[in-house]
Amino acid sequence: MGHEDGKDKVPRTVRDILTEMKDTSEVIVDLAYAALVFDSQEMAEEVQHLERRMDILLYNIRIKAMLSARTKRDAEQLAGLLQVASAAEAISNAAGDIVNLLKYDSDKRPFLPIFLKEAEEKIKSLTLAEKSDMVNRTIGEMGVESETGMRIIALKRGKRWMYDPEPNNRLKAGDLLIVRGTDNGFEVLRSFASGDRLWPQYPVKEAG
Amino acid sequence: MGHEDGKDKVPRTVRDILTEMKDTSEVIVDLAYAALVFDSQEMAEEVQHLERRMDILLYNIRIKAMLSARTKRDAEQLAGLLQVASAAEAISNAAGDIVNLLKYDSDKRPFLPIFLKEAEEKIKSLTLAEKSDMVNRTIGEMGVESETGMRIIALKRGKRWMYDPEPNNRLKAGDLLIVRGTDNGFEVLRSFASGDRLWPQYPVKEAG
Repeated sequence: MGHEDGKDKVPRTVRDILTEMKDTSEVIVDLAYAALVFDSQEMAEEVQHLERRMDILLYNIRIKAMLSARTKRDAEQLAGLLQVASAAEAISNAAGDIVNLLKYDSDKRPFLPIFLKEAEEKIKSLTLAEKSDMVNRTIGEMGVESETGMRIIALKRGKRWMYDPEPNNRLKAGDLLIVRGTDNGFEVLRSFASGDRLWPQYPVKEAG
Repeated sequence: MGHEDGKDKVPRTVRDILTEMKDTSEVIVDLAYAALVFDSQEMAEEVQHLERRMDILLYNIRIKAMLSARTKRDAEQLAGLLQVASAAEAISNAAGDIVNLLKYDSDKRPFLPIFLKEAEEKIKSLTLAEKSDMVNRTIGEMGVESETGMRIIALKRGKRWMYDPEPNNRLKAGDLLIVRGTDNGFEVLRSFASGDRLWPQYPVKEAG
């Protein structure tokens, strides 16, 4: 995902549109709460961008569904897909409502971030140090989530945000990572990101 | 979480109700898609149970918010919390719409589970073998998510479902785990759950 890679085109098939809508509906809720926790207008804008994209996807999936229904059975199956698509879009609208709170002055919503930080899985941020072993490696090759249990929700490089970054995304020094997981997992990840610990190497079992 | 532990009471404070609503809104979306993937009426019922609970929580948080607003500033802050609560409840309604699809005959929604399995992070299930090293240990003490990157969305023991099980939940032989994560993480977890591999032991750094 990540709209930085010019992926503003709508996927071609009903199936691919719905897959994107499902994935977005899962990440957008995390992202909306993260925007509140970090009081981040930029993350809120990402949520709003996704919300608008979900509108477009919903419109397109409806058209494609109608054009591809040839029999009653097709139509019944497609109606089910449209129901999921509508629900995914409703989730993104709710996420948009959450970030709308950031429009208000921060003194009118002061204790919100504090208690959101108390959930079991916390949303935190860290910056990749120049000397970190994670620099110039991809998220997938490191297996960040398998190794630390921390999920990278979003990444900020310079002024650019990428949400739900792809496994083939190569990290750079100075990247700001927004991550979600337990306190323990965060401490492990922080030790790698700061360069205090080297990323573990395992014996290679099979090629690739 | 998990309503099996008699936790049907509504938390006492606005803050605690909202924390539960936020946590539920994050897990219910996963759970709804999982119910479709596994064509599971029981998981769908869990989603519906959570959806009803969210209604009750929303009603209660509104009452408590009104009773606790003493000044204009209180009211402004509480209005923000209610906005988040409403959004969380809207998310749970959308999750309910997703599982409503299971009401239809399965031949009217056949390719839905198949392509949901193609998302980057997959939802899968596995059963804990008698001889698995994970039996009789808690999710937290093993650090299942840190170790494998797999998140346990739900657990079925006998006829009972627990969603988003707590870290202090002790696993038993025969437990069915519904997990979410990458293919690699799943293979690692499966090798532990089957008893083919022992759960790794690390030198203890500090007490507790």
